[in-house]
Amino acid sequence: PDGPLEEDGGSGAGVADDTAEFGLVSVAQGPRLGIGMDSCVIPLRHGGLSLIQTTDFFYPLVEDPYMMGRIACANVLSDLYAMGITECDNMLMLLSVSQKMNEKERDQVMPLMMKGFRDAAEEAGTSVTGGQTVINPWIIIGGVASVVCQPNDFIMPDSAVPGDVLVLTKPLGTQVAVNAHQWLDIPEKWNKIKLVISREEVEQAYQEAMLSMATLNRTAAALMHKFNAHAATDITGFGIIGHARNLAQQQKNDVAFVIHNLPIISKMAAISKAGGNLFGLLQGTSSETSGGLLICLPREQAARFCAEMKSSRAGDGQQAWIIGIVEKGNRCARIIDKPRIIEVPYRGSVVSAQEGSNNNASPPEVQLT
Amino acid sequence: PDGPLEEDGGSGAGVADDTAEFGLVSVAQGPRLGIGMDSCVIPLRHGGLSLIQTTDFFYPLVEDPYMMGRIACANVLSDLYAMGITECDNMLMLLSVSQKMNEKERDQVMPLMMKGFRDAAEEAGTSVTGGQTVINPWIIIGGVASVVCQPNDFIMPDSAVPGDVLVLTKPLGTQVAVNAHQWLDIPEKWNKIKLVISREEVEQAYQEAMLSMATLNRTAAALMHKFNAHAATDITGFGIIGHARNLAQQQKNDVAFVIHNLPIISKMAAISKAGGNLFGLLQGTSSETSGGLLICLPREQAARFCAEMKSSRAGDGQQAWIIGIVEKGNRCARIIDKPRIIEVPYRGSVVSAQEGSNNNASPPEVQLT
Repeated sequence: PDGPLEEDGGSGAGVADDTAEFGLVSVAQGPRLGIGMDSCVIPLRHGGLSLIQTTDFFYPLVEDPYMMGRIACANVLSDLYAMGITECDNMLMLLSVSQKMNEKERDQVMPLMMKGFRDAAEEAGTSVTGGQTVINPWIIIGGVASVVCQPNDFIMPDSAVPGDVLVLTKPLGTQVAVNAHQWLDIPEKWNKIKLVISREEVEQAYQEAMLSMATLNRTAAALMHKFNAHAATDITGFGIIGHARNLAQQQKNDVAFVIHNLPIISKMAAISKAGGNLFGLLQGTSSETSGGLLICLPREQAARFCAEMKSSRAGDGQQAWIIGIVEKGNRCARIIDKPRIIEVPYRGSVVSAQEGSNNNASPPEVQLT
Repeated sequence: PDGPLEEDGGSGAGVADDTAEFGLVSVAQGPRLGIGMDSCVIPLRHGGLSLIQTTDFFYPLVEDPYMMGRIACANVLSDLYAMGITECDNMLMLLSVSQKMNEKERDQVMPLMMKGFRDAAEEAGTSVTGGQTVINPWIIIGGVASVVCQPNDFIMPDSAVPGDVLVLTKPLGTQVAVNAHQWLDIPEKWNKIKLVISREEVEQAYQEAMLSMATLNRTAAALMHKFNAHAATDITGFGIIGHARNLAQQQKNDVAFVIHNLPIISKMAAISKAGGNLFGLLQGTSSETSGGLLICLPREQAARFCAEMKSSRAGDGQQAWIIGIVEKGNRCARIIDKPRIIEVPYRGSVVSAQEGSNNNASPPEVQLT
């Protein structure tokens, strides 16, 4: 979550809301264009062009340095993708080496993390040409993504209308999956959840979360143009409800977002319940890292958007779900009382599941009560 | 010192050289244009424009949070100024709050630091529209500066020719001044230097260093165009000799830089000697924070450059010194055996000194042996 810094710099804010167990802190609004948006948009002096950029840095949350690099890069770029931007002109990398690492650990870990970041940047069609590295008690990884755009290259996230539907492009539950994985080694934590999930399933869920976080939202950004998206944001530190509310507040029209379905990595809802409503996953407050895009689409386009995301040609088989509706309202967002939980299978198990159902391409979830 | 990240991300590098007592680590080269430069230059798809950007973040080194914010901002922008760029389209702020601060400390310190950063950005004619804040064991402050330029807006730092002279736009010695100030409270350190400087002078030197570090190099950047600068860099973590060498290596012509004069904040050379060649100040290896620009200028223009820097109209009375020459050579840089130390008086004491000599506008230092 980038989110421009607070305008007045006052009240000790811009640092107030520590929303994520991962150590993320999101910050508030900026001046000019871009109030509350994922990226800032700076009109340039040259021929109607705008500079759009975003920054993000945080601490490792998965154990695999290479995947951590990919996740960090996907997370930075996601703020551009949320505005329907598909190209990035340049990235900078922000790094710190932990002072607690010895030279050998450093030489093993940091190049892998940098390689993951660079590989994801390359997959995104951009590259990393600069950055800064410091030594710090904790490892830090993050970056800056910048692009110079023509007006048609980006979609301002402010034009949702009643009748639109809400589409989500990645499942929720990354925070639960990452934490459950850590709890495998903490008996008092593990005892709370072991009745609802096996150790093997925790491993699979963790792998699924890692792959999901490392996936670029670039295809979704491209399809936002094709299917006339009215607004979008990416789901990160504030959880789906936090980002839905933020997006609702930016709308020009009197709209409200109502979420009916929660696609969640399989078994993560059960863990959350078993742990006493862990992280508020079912209330939508569990923070995500490098989550999906939440997109307001015309109702008649949404199913095709989801189908095209899933088609291997354009979308590498990524799934997307219609999760709610846009109705007339007061620029707020809510989840209905008993949302339908969509259990999203792990990729490992998906392979076999798909083999049985591949010809029977299931329609996207459109059953809204 | 931004300096793009290492291309291959390999060898654990990009993180190797901890050059500064301040905790700065500088990183190595990048691909595309911009090898070893202070900012990266990205050709855009739009009408000959380039995106030029840089990032820097580090840890506080002065006690005054407001001044620290100003220094951090001046330090980030300096990488643009080193390329003769006078405008900045956008800044992002990078911050971390220390987890060791209580709420009251946080609410006192962080807004001041942010205000300092913003005020310096405003002085630079730009503004801060985004950023990221995290919680960390240590306070971090830094930023990103970006600008979209036409070809004439920037000066590639690669065109020095034999016969040029080297100009420096801020005195050296900030690291010595900051450390000496800390040693006021550390008897075993203070005992080493107390014979050559009084406590009051340490305070004055520290103030002078703080003001110098908080000064924008923007005037110098503008005058680089007016006086046909051939190349420039800013002096930061690698000290004057490190940055001079780096700049020499980037030259198209067979040149070498020879430094004859070292303008140093008054008494800092004496402290360095008394402490047993502290930080290698007289060898040019003492790191600086937000130091001056080192500029290769045609000999016949350099004196006028310095005079115009000093004139209140354009340069707010900043001083600049001719410190060396460009000769034919092997893209290296050196300081002569016994460089002339120019004692740069503290601003407090400058006022009275200037009163006596104002009409007698002294020529810039041009006596090169």
